[in-house]
Amino acid sequence: MRRRYKEEYEILIERLSEKGLNVDAIKARLKALEIETPSWAYADSGTRFGIFYQPGAAVTIQEKLEDAAQVHKFTGIAPSVAVHVLWDFPDGKVDGVKEYAEQLGLRIGSVNPNVFQDQCYKYGSVASPDPEVRRRAVKHIIDSIEIAKQVGSNILSLWFADGTNHPGQDDFRRRKNRIVECLQEVYEAMPEDMTMLIEYKFFEPAFYHTDIADWGMAYVFAQKCGERAKVLVDLGHHPHGTNIEHVVAFLIDEGKLGGFHFNNRKYADDDLTTGSINPYELFLILKEIVAAEEEANFKVAFMVDQAANIKPKIEEMIQTIVNIQIAYAKALLIPRDKLFEAQERCDVVMAEQILQDAFNADVMPLIMTVREEMGVPLDPLMAYRQSGYQQRIERERGIRKGAGGLGA
Amino acid sequence: MRRRYKEEYEILIERLSEKGLNVDAIKARLKALEIETPSWAYADSGTRFGIFYQPGAAVTIQEKLEDAAQVHKFTGIAPSVAVHVLWDFPDGKVDGVKEYAEQLGLRIGSVNPNVFQDQCYKYGSVASPDPEVRRRAVKHIIDSIEIAKQVGSNILSLWFADGTNHPGQDDFRRRKNRIVECLQEVYEAMPEDMTMLIEYKFFEPAFYHTDIADWGMAYVFAQKCGERAKVLVDLGHHPHGTNIEHVVAFLIDEGKLGGFHFNNRKYADDDLTTGSINPYELFLILKEIVAAEEEANFKVAFMVDQAANIKPKIEEMIQTIVNIQIAYAKALLIPRDKLFEAQERCDVVMAEQILQDAFNADVMPLIMTVREEMGVPLDPLMAYRQSGYQQRIERERGIRKGAGGLGA
Amino acid sequence: MRRRYKEEYEILIERLSEKGLNVDAIKARLKALEIETPSWAYADSGTRFGIFYQPGAAVTIQEKLEDAAQVHKFTGIAPSVAVHVLWDFPDGKVDGVKEYAEQLGLRIGSVNPNVFQDQCYKYGSVASPDPEVRRRAVKHIIDSIEIAKQVGSNILSLWFADGTNHPGQDDFRRRKNRIVECLQEVYEAMPEDMTMLIEYKFFEPAFYHTDIADWGMAYVFAQKCGERAKVLVDLGHHPHGTNIEHVVAFLIDEGKLGGFHFNNRKYADDDLTTGSINPYELFLILKEIVAAEEEANFKVAFMVDQAANIKPKIEEMIQTIVNIQIAYAKALLIPRDKLFEAQERCDVVMAEQILQDAFNADVMPLIMTVREEMGVPLDPLMAYRQSGYQQRIERERGIRKGAGGLGA
Amino acid sequence: MRRRYKEEYEILIERLSEKGLNVDAIKARLKALEIETPSWAYADSGTRFGIFYQPGAAVTIQEKLEDAAQVHKFTGIAPSVAVHVLWDFPDGKVDGVKEYAEQLGLRIGSVNPNVFQDQCYKYGSVASPDPEVRRRAVKHIIDSIEIAKQVGSNILSLWFADGTNHPGQDDFRRRKNRIVECLQEVYEAMPEDMTMLIEYKFFEPAFYHTDIADWGMAYVFAQKCGERAKVLVDLGHHPHGTNIEHVVAFLIDEGKLGGFHFNNRKYADDDLTTGSINPYELFLILKEIVAAEEEANFKVAFMVDQAANIKPKIEEMIQTIVNIQIAYAKALLIPRDKLFEAQERCDVVMAEQILQDAFNADVMPLIMTVREEMGVPLDPLMAYRQSGYQQRIERERGIRKGAGGLGA
Repeated sequence: MRRRYKEEYEILIERLSEKGLNVDAIKARLKALEIETPSWAYADSGTRFGIFYQPGAAVTIQEKLEDAAQVHKFTGIAPSVAVHVLWDFPDGKVDGVKEYAEQLGLRIGSVNPNVFQDQCYKYGSVASPDPEVRRRAVKHIIDSIEIAKQVGSNILSLWFADGTNHPGQDDFRRRKNRIVECLQEVYEAMPEDMTMLIEYKFFEPAFYHTDIADWGMAYVFAQKCGERAKVLVDLGHHPHGTNIEHVVAFLIDEGKLGGFHFNNRKYADDDLTTGSINPYELFLILKEIVAAEEEANFKVAFMVDQAANIKPKIEEMIQTIVNIQIAYAKALLIPRDKLFEAQERCDVVMAEQILQDAFNADVMPLIMTVREEMGVPLDPLMAYRQSGYQQRIERERGIRKGAGGLGA
Repeated sequence: MRRRYKEEYEILIERLSEKGLNVDAIKARLKALEIETPSWAYADSGTRFGIFYQPGAAVTIQEKLEDAAQVHKFTGIAPSVAVHVLWDFPDGKVDGVKEYAEQLGLRIGSVNPNVFQDQCYKYGSVASPDPEVRRRAVKHIIDSIEIAKQVGSNILSLWFADGTNHPGQDDFRRRKNRIVECLQEVYEAMPEDMTMLIEYKFFEPAFYHTDIADWGMAYVFAQKCGERAKVLVDLGHHPHGTNIEHVVAFLIDEGKLGGFHFNNRKYADDDLTTGSINPYELFLILKEIVAAEEEANFKVAFMVDQAANIKPKIEEMIQTIVNIQIAYAKALLIPRDKLFEAQERCDVVMAEQILQDAFNADVMPLIMTVREEMGVPLDPLMAYRQSGYQQRIERERGIRKGAGGLGA
Repeated sequence: MRRRYKEEYEILIERLSEKGLNVDAIKARLKALEIETPSWAYADSGTRFGIFYQPGAAVTIQEKLEDAAQVHKFTGIAPSVAVHVLWDFPDGKVDGVKEYAEQLGLRIGSVNPNVFQDQCYKYGSVASPDPEVRRRAVKHIIDSIEIAKQVGSNILSLWFADGTNHPGQDDFRRRKNRIVECLQEVYEAMPEDMTMLIEYKFFEPAFYHTDIADWGMAYVFAQKCGERAKVLVDLGHHPHGTNIEHVVAFLIDEGKLGGFHFNNRKYADDDLTTGSINPYELFLILKEIVAAEEEANFKVAFMVDQAANIKPKIEEMIQTIVNIQIAYAKALLIPRDKLFEAQERCDVVMAEQILQDAFNADVMPLIMTVREEMGVPLDPLMAYRQSGYQQRIERERGIRKGAGGLGA
Repeated sequence: MRRRYKEEYEILIERLSEKGLNVDAIKARLKALEIETPSWAYADSGTRFGIFYQPGAAVTIQEKLEDAAQVHKFTGIAPSVAVHVLWDFPDGKVDGVKEYAEQLGLRIGSVNPNVFQDQCYKYGSVASPDPEVRRRAVKHIIDSIEIAKQVGSNILSLWFADGTNHPGQDDFRRRKNRIVECLQEVYEAMPEDMTMLIEYKFFEPAFYHTDIADWGMAYVFAQKCGERAKVLVDLGHHPHGTNIEHVVAFLIDEGKLGGFHFNNRKYADDDLTTGSINPYELFLILKEIVAAEEEANFKVAFMVDQAANIKPKIEEMIQTIVNIQIAYAKALLIPRDKLFEAQERCDVVMAEQILQDAFNADVMPLIMTVREEMGVPLDPLMAYRQSGYQQRIERERGIRKGAGGLGA
């Protein structure tokens, strides 16, 4: 525990004021930050080589919500939960879920259909050569819209595993046009206040081509649907070296950034803890968001999508939320007027230095102050560890193989 | 020399007929193939570590055209030459160039402005924070349109080195909007029969971000200009693993594929001989083109953009043209009806086998027959070697350092 | 079917003779080629997102051997089968397996222990911080040596999934030294005629670091064990751009190349059909092997390691064997004396052209002649399709979920 | 300026003491840190697309030393300068250089021969097929050993641009054996107190294969020379995703880590400011060094190798030195005993948290205290900006094209 954080906070705000930053506004924005956690992150996950089962891993949607409520309880900034239709509502029934979430202090966030796991999707879903399969996929997505309405969600989040494994397996352009047709039908079925998020992915589980392989393809599909179709950026779904903050800025400028799937990767789509491999990159991405948030009508969904294969799942999620909070706080410390001035006079060294100074700042005294004011523990991870919750679910739930979904 | 190619040709066409392929149509398309070579490929090139100077490397536009004429003379399918305004017309004068090209049996192809080499472009050209620099860049491009008119070209080919080297150096979105403004002005200045090609590049010479980094960004910029603005795909400008044939098919389907810069790479933008690292990928790309060519109004410019740092330049260009010709011939051998049938019934193995059979075919007897009918040498490389041209330019021109441009 | 292949063969051998190649020697080497297929390739496989179950997929070692025997029957060059101890001998019993293989015209090839699937290996096997876990891993590997003796194999093939997912999770150097200790113990337990193959892998299933991440690490571990410990190169286990043929040549030169796991990839460790993404790279790798095979005492194990997630498994394996055979045949057509001459005089264009001419040759007439002489079908894939075997196993075995192992 | 850093320092050391860290020892190590800057970083540099000339860029070795002395003056931890034989001693004369360096408070560090720029090295230096070229390369390196003796250096730092651009261009194994022969001759010529550093590089300027492409190859070459031949790790010379800290730890454990070339990259070998793209990775690398430094006889050379194409060169170097200092300070804050304990009990979350807490700490109060005690400015960059040196060299030296070497 950091005993003297209040003194540190006093020194910090003095420095921030000298830079022309409004500490009250920064605190207000830190309190308004909301990050959605996914129901499937509380269930067992693994790789193609196997799953390491965790005692206490959630199986039912109720358990997942209970675990998510712990994350919110200890961080104060994770009030909503993304659901996965196939895994969370295996029989299509959602009775009482919305109410149970509310009872736990949560709400249901984005709704994710699943059109990749069933054997019929072997050659694709909305891009399949088989019209019956495409029908089935569209029906499942439209059913998911109904579920969204029932659980009080207005975000339909679409990821397609569609692609091919072998050159020649199918025709790129025919697949593209099948997707357009299906997505337009889904778009028309959405209520007026619903947003469609279209996710792209560089590769996996298809290994020769993925039908929505990059932001450009997702953008074109969104454009063909309408204004409420936007692009979802999963941080792990890019080729190495991709400047993600640039892509994010480009999409913001086009009014087409809809949401994030936060995570981090070193190699492929590793789904590691957000900020655990390159925290500076996370900061640079959030810098673009922080700037856009000051513009009218900007709205983006912050969601986590990770797979804690070996870390305890609730602990990892708390660590994740804190990592995003830290990076967001650092991004708020950038004196943007000074940055623009340095950019305008091409003072490259100073412009970069402004970013690095913000990144190198110790924001914990600021965050601890905010936590105190929000009434959440000063050290969420330690507080969770000491709460006894983990021991209880490990004891009560035990290990239950083959349940609860797959890490995506 | 391959003495018995006529017998081989007879056996080959018999096999092709059995597959339902029309050999006359294939031969007609092989004769209609045209690949543009770039003037700068005949001049010295190198890496940041230095240039290896070649005796006989061209310096003036006249020499470059003479060398290009050799490539066309020995291959019969390289009738046009791309020009680089700064390097080929250093004083802005183009008098007699068109006529000299025609005299050599060539025409001038795409016109490439240069807004990256001058010291004023240190922080960008059309994306520069300095409005004066942007003015200058736009003026140079509009001047290049005039040059294009004078040399009889209707393709304006735009590559921008714009980007930043350091996080924070400049604002992504401000740069994006500066580019839109500049490109729209250029577009308005083009005559009605001119096409604007917008090239993208993953990185280099900027190392933190490139303003037009991928096909999606080039696509959005082209969309904001108009119908005659299209995307140029340079095969070396993608992250590793990118499925280029998929991108090409996507752009064709959107009516936005404008042209190619052919080359090959193993690592970054290596500008190696086309087809020298992964000839199967080249075949798969050309497969998409071959299909699209049968549709109305499809038109794409085939251009080479390479840097023969250690190979003799004219020899490498002949090798390149032949490699593209071979891959194109193989792509023409795909029985597409059979392929579609296999795709429709999800017979993945057979669909792939159809491609591999076409790729593994020996098309040399076919190509040699076409060459014979076109009146060009059966073995262009050997014929060039024996022509004495190389020895003559090495002797007459010698080594002349620091001239003629840079490999791009 | 290719009716006139004999005429084509006559023309081909005439050309080869002109190049100074000995066609009889080439045919003899093609007949001597042997490629091992893995038992697990005949069982269901998938990705972390799920498995698509195939009717007829093998479950027991007997079924896997029966399927492998089909591949050998139709190709004539796949006489051995790699086994996976955990999946093929779940109760540790190997009674009758060797005999059953022999009865099918096969032999057992490399023996693969499994120290990654059990829950105890969550934090590693031979690198685990827990000495009990390391004990257990070593014991399993030594048990596998016994199994190898019983099934008549003298190759112990070791792949470790060991690694970490998070910075700080464990100490690199402590893990390294634990591995050395374990491997040396295993090496000592091997009979004198047994070879240990050490496989490396860039990443997956660990996502922050893999303990044996590249050929250099495998080389150092092999060196610390002894002369009969060598490196196994899996074609899919490298970073993008890696020049695998260079690594292979380097290992050959050091006397440390032990074997291959053939497959192909476009992105990560995709385990696609060998030769399906970059057949020219396969040819360049085999070129190094073909050269080394003429040296005394050179011996390398050719093994396949793929996962046919959507292709029928036996068909894919036949396709794979044929692809390797084609690439090997092309590599045999390189006139190496002429190549060395061109290299010595730095005639880069001609040296490359020699390779491309060999690669572009149509070797099917040669291979069909060899097949005829070996008494196997001229078109193995078609012959298998027509044999009725696939229909029979689909009918008799049906779909049986959750059995037979995982694709590695 | 940070007025209240002393108060912050007091709070920080209290926290460090609570973690069992010895602040005096940490300060002593921060004062003992030494980072070598390269002479060529003070000269103009660029890309293959051109050089942006900077007013005041150094041309002579004297100017380079003067500029390096500024970096040392303002940071206190950059006392040595790496020299490049061809660029710094173009006529082979080193008279007075050692003395001039001493006069400026500097010493000469590693000596770098250049066997890549001369036209004779077109096909390689120590790997060239031409024995005359190899002779010449070896002679130049042995001459460089003499120069090293004269300037008081005992580090011979070898980087070879050797490689090929085209498949088939040369034989991998012949090249390997030529290198071994040359390196052994050089090794024999070194005095007994001299260390040979062998650098590897993934690619560039060769684009098909690099003869020393990875750490494994450098390791094998070093092993074949002897104990004083070690591996040099340039942070930009790896494929994407490579876990560099793992490679570093592996080499340390083998006693074969000789030195670093610090820089950072986003794409290829970008030679950007150290710590500017992924500062956390830099911290993780230095963590391995900090641990090894406590072992007997560990010695590694810290060198910078960057190319400030658009940043003012001296400013960038100061920024670089500070970035390394910050990362090194953070690495010193890791309570390694606690880390090992967490690792031993497989508490992955806590082990990682220990690293992140150290990384997120604000070490500026600590570093400012150290600077104060060392008598260097509290803010080196600002102090340099205000010193007037930059304005003076810009005025006096101006722009002088084509001089001083290339960025490597």
